[in-house]
Amino acid sequence: MSKGDEVVLLDCWASPFCMRAKIALAEKGVDFEVRAEDLFGGKSDLLLNSNPIYKKVPVLLHNGKPLCESTVIVGYIDETWPSPPLLPSCAYQRAQARFWADFIDKKVFDAGVKIWGSKGEVPEAAKEEFVETLKKLEGALGDKDYFGGDSFGFVDIIAIPLTSWFYPTEKFGGFKVENECPKLSAWINKCLQRESVAKVLPDPEKLYEFVIFVRKMHGIE
Amino acid sequence: MSKGDEVVLLDCWASPFCMRAKIALAEKGVDFEVRAEDLFGGKSDLLLNSNPIYKKVPVLLHNGKPLCESTVIVGYIDETWPSPPLLPSCAYQRAQARFWADFIDKKVFDAGVKIWGSKGEVPEAAKEEFVETLKKLEGALGDKDYFGGDSFGFVDIIAIPLTSWFYPTEKFGGFKVENECPKLSAWINKCLQRESVAKVLPDPEKLYEFVIFVRKMHGIE
Repeated sequence: MSKGDEVVLLDCWASPFCMRAKIALAEKGVDFEVRAEDLFGGKSDLLLNSNPIYKKVPVLLHNGKPLCESTVIVGYIDETWPSPPLLPSCAYQRAQARFWADFIDKKVFDAGVKIWGSKGEVPEAAKEEFVETLKKLEGALGDKDYFGGDSFGFVDIIAIPLTSWFYPTEKFGGFKVENECPKLSAWINKCLQRESVAKVLPDPEKLYEFVIFVRKMHGIE
Repeated sequence: MSKGDEVVLLDCWASPFCMRAKIALAEKGVDFEVRAEDLFGGKSDLLLNSNPIYKKVPVLLHNGKPLCESTVIVGYIDETWPSPPLLPSCAYQRAQARFWADFIDKKVFDAGVKIWGSKGEVPEAAKEEFVETLKKLEGALGDKDYFGGDSFGFVDIIAIPLTSWFYPTEKFGGFKVENECPKLSAWINKCLQRESVAKVLPDPEKLYEFVIFVRKMHGIE
């Protein structure tokens, strides 16, 4: 990274999608400025102008040029600051990593919303869907240390922030991910020992309070 | 491509997602075998085993190794057979291309389903959503010849197959994309002049019949 690089992240501390960008930048050793957005009180003009399509965080501004959508941002970070690499060097393995990143994007957060965002009793089908999704992910992990194999990589960065929302999801759902997916839980604990992850993932109790707040803002309860 | 390469596509002629893989392979000059899947009559064991997560076409088998999800497949084709390149060489432009490919994946087909798949009269909101989505896409195209700029590229390949479903969507929705999005229509016509596109995109009337069939299979009407 050249000295002149200016890297700014439009952020919300509780967003797992913002956490992805922060972990990726930390893994690459890139200095960056975090600008917190008040998503409920009013978004900044910079956010609205930088992401006119979705008007959502995270937005990464690299020397003033905006990048949107967290998986795209992590890919850009990997290409712009190549060391250490996050995606595998082999095209087939890279495609597999993109497949799983896409699976996580399509399934994990939304499956959780159906639990912690539900009005009244959580439907059994929602719990089953959530656990089934995690079991598929656990199948992709297999017996490897990380989704990236021996080293923490692209899919790990896409997946690990979503696990910070597991605690509120478990509390509303009345189950424990640890009991359903022991290998995935071991992977979470291994990731939490990394500095890049530990300093970004919020305290579960604080996130639980945030979920209570989000439910109230959406008129649930 | 080495002589020994075996490239097989598990395909359905009407699937815009399969069309993406076929256009990308044609652009790269890769010889491949198409194996038609009978999606309503019973999927092959090869499909079920190659794509256990989604059990859907397209699946690309490269020397027997399966790749799933059309956007991942097109990216893999671009990396494996580098000439001519489909994604831009600049990391920022590449991230923009991935952003728009993702936008198309999230929005365009599903917005169309709400029109041609609707029971009874098509809701005005569904038509508005579809047209708004296309207008955003038209904004990304701007005054360029292709989404890729001067040359047909990654986003063009992701987007153009979906336009083959516009005719049934227009018939059910009672509007014309040409009237709503003239620049996007001009881009469609330009793409249709390419051999790789013209030989893959089906006859609109045949696709309309297919949509009628799909509606019947799903108990609509």
